[in-house]
Amino acid sequence: MDQAVTDHFNEFQVGQTESYARTISEADIVLFSGVSGDDNPVHLNEIYASESVFNGRIAHGMLTASYISTVIGTRLPGPGTIYLGQNLTFWAPVRAGDTVTATVTIKAIDPEKRRLTLTTNCTVGDETVIEGEALVMLPLPEDAKATEKGAPA
Amino acid sequence: MDQAVTDHFNEFQVGQTESYARTISEADIVLFSGVSGDDNPVHLNEIYASESVFNGRIAHGMLTASYISTVIGTRLPGPGTIYLGQNLTFWAPVRAGDTVTATVTIKAIDPEKRRLTLTTNCTVGDETVIEGEALVMLPLPEDAKATEKGAPA
Amino acid sequence: MDQAVTDHFNEFQVGQTESYARTISEADIVLFSGVSGDDNPVHLNEIYASESVFNGRIAHGMLTASYISTVIGTRLPGPGTIYLGQNLTFWAPVRAGDTVTATVTIKAIDPEKRRLTLTTNCTVGDETVIEGEALVMLPLPEDAKATEKGAPA
Amino acid sequence: MDQAVTDHFNEFQVGQTESYARTISEADIVLFSGVSGDDNPVHLNEIYASESVFNGRIAHGMLTASYISTVIGTRLPGPGTIYLGQNLTFWAPVRAGDTVTATVTIKAIDPEKRRLTLTTNCTVGDETVIEGEALVMLPLPEDAKATEKGAPA
Repeated sequence: MDQAVTDHFNEFQVGQTESYARTISEADIVLFSGVSGDDNPVHLNEIYASESVFNGRIAHGMLTASYISTVIGTRLPGPGTIYLGQNLTFWAPVRAGDTVTATVTIKAIDPEKRRLTLTTNCTVGDETVIEGEALVMLPLPEDAKATEKGAPA
Repeated sequence: MDQAVTDHFNEFQVGQTESYARTISEADIVLFSGVSGDDNPVHLNEIYASESVFNGRIAHGMLTASYISTVIGTRLPGPGTIYLGQNLTFWAPVRAGDTVTATVTIKAIDPEKRRLTLTTNCTVGDETVIEGEALVMLPLPEDAKATEKGAPA
Repeated sequence: MDQAVTDHFNEFQVGQTESYARTISEADIVLFSGVSGDDNPVHLNEIYASESVFNGRIAHGMLTASYISTVIGTRLPGPGTIYLGQNLTFWAPVRAGDTVTATVTIKAIDPEKRRLTLTTNCTVGDETVIEGEALVMLPLPEDAKATEKGAPA
Repeated sequence: MDQAVTDHFNEFQVGQTESYARTISEADIVLFSGVSGDDNPVHLNEIYASESVFNGRIAHGMLTASYISTVIGTRLPGPGTIYLGQNLTFWAPVRAGDTVTATVTIKAIDPEKRRLTLTTNCTVGDETVIEGEALVMLPLPEDAKATEKGAPA
């Protein structure tokens, strides 16, 4: 069985890109508040939020950021990826009704460590709302049971 | 009304700390999959996950990370905070049943820019599962309507 | 205890009808995407959906169809029913804000096999959006533990 | 722009197959009860359900069936598909903890009407729990705005 499982790591190319797009709904904000416990009134209280710097309720930055993880865990590199790190810079708030596109692009490949550096941006129309970079690892097919570092996307 | 709103920024101290602890449930994982769109089988398919490096279903790294945002947005610094950036290193997976504690500690204070650098760690028992750092800003009470950069925690 | 449980099967009549009506919300669509894993952008991405044949986000056909199962499992015939089969023809899309009425009517009764054939339609106003037929079985009260075929509504 | 959009319909082949697998959780059952309104005690009341033919709480048949729609709407044929019909035969109940695999296979192709007949089965291990057939249509890329029949998967 030594060569039974094919290793696709060397098929990755710098510049390869995938994205996930979704309209953020009020329901998403409510549910994210529930699972995260982040009930900051700027997300859930319209009166408070309309008097804040944001002029109305906005989505959690980490809800928008979660779409990056969706691309990484389901499309590029996809299931099996080990998430080692993620940097995020939040540039602008996102509101219910905004359609967010999270785009992941391969920036660098380290074949020895089987790691990829990914550019991870989120946009609403022409505006970048989150800019970031992720570091991920792809386990060797045959080592799949040996490692247990990092967390999955 | 000139001095009506008190500015509490100068009360922050390096070393000040707050945390949020929560047992991750299967329901949290299911709901996070729904709001993020991340239905990677390592989160939702026990058969697939038990044959992966993780030996069973695990939580989304960004679900655990969301608890950091909960501390920032609700406890330290709390409502009104503007989230400028977050770095995350994922050290270990988290499973349904694990109780995660997210701890935020003030590492540095920039009074001129009204910014705080925060150490942001998540632990399960004695093990650090996420290590990170956040940069946040507190708007001047009277400028609350003037700024609209970053996203809320 | 021999005659303790009364058998109500012979009280069913052809033409007997029950319904369940509900306004589909954006939250229902988001939650259904989560539990089903169906994050087709026609349900969740307003920009994509508005450029599709549907001219905007629409509900999952199976979400609307689930209301049929609600009538069967809770009203007619109600708890205890065993769902053997369901045919569905989808005639028109349903959007958030539409109020759907699912109506179940007894079309035929097979006393020997203890089965009912049910007409199962869903409407929005005067428009039929789903047309279908279901086949269900009612276990003998005393055989309740003996059978385990089909699935419940 | 006449030939700008490529039509991929003629690339479909009889026998082509895709699947979606997921472990049904108690949370899925609770959430499906909420969005469908089907609060039949056989799904939500362990005492009632343990005395029923099912010997314990089971999932809604339509929850399991929704995974068929997930394959159709996201993988084969994928986004853009118009769902015309679905037949379902329920062969066995599914419980929290069961891992369901929904498999969709092209059975027949009607190029003139741009329709596909699909075999749609759900299994738990070696057991078929749902057997069915679906009829779907793929709109011509250029007619995308002209049609509005059926519902999306």
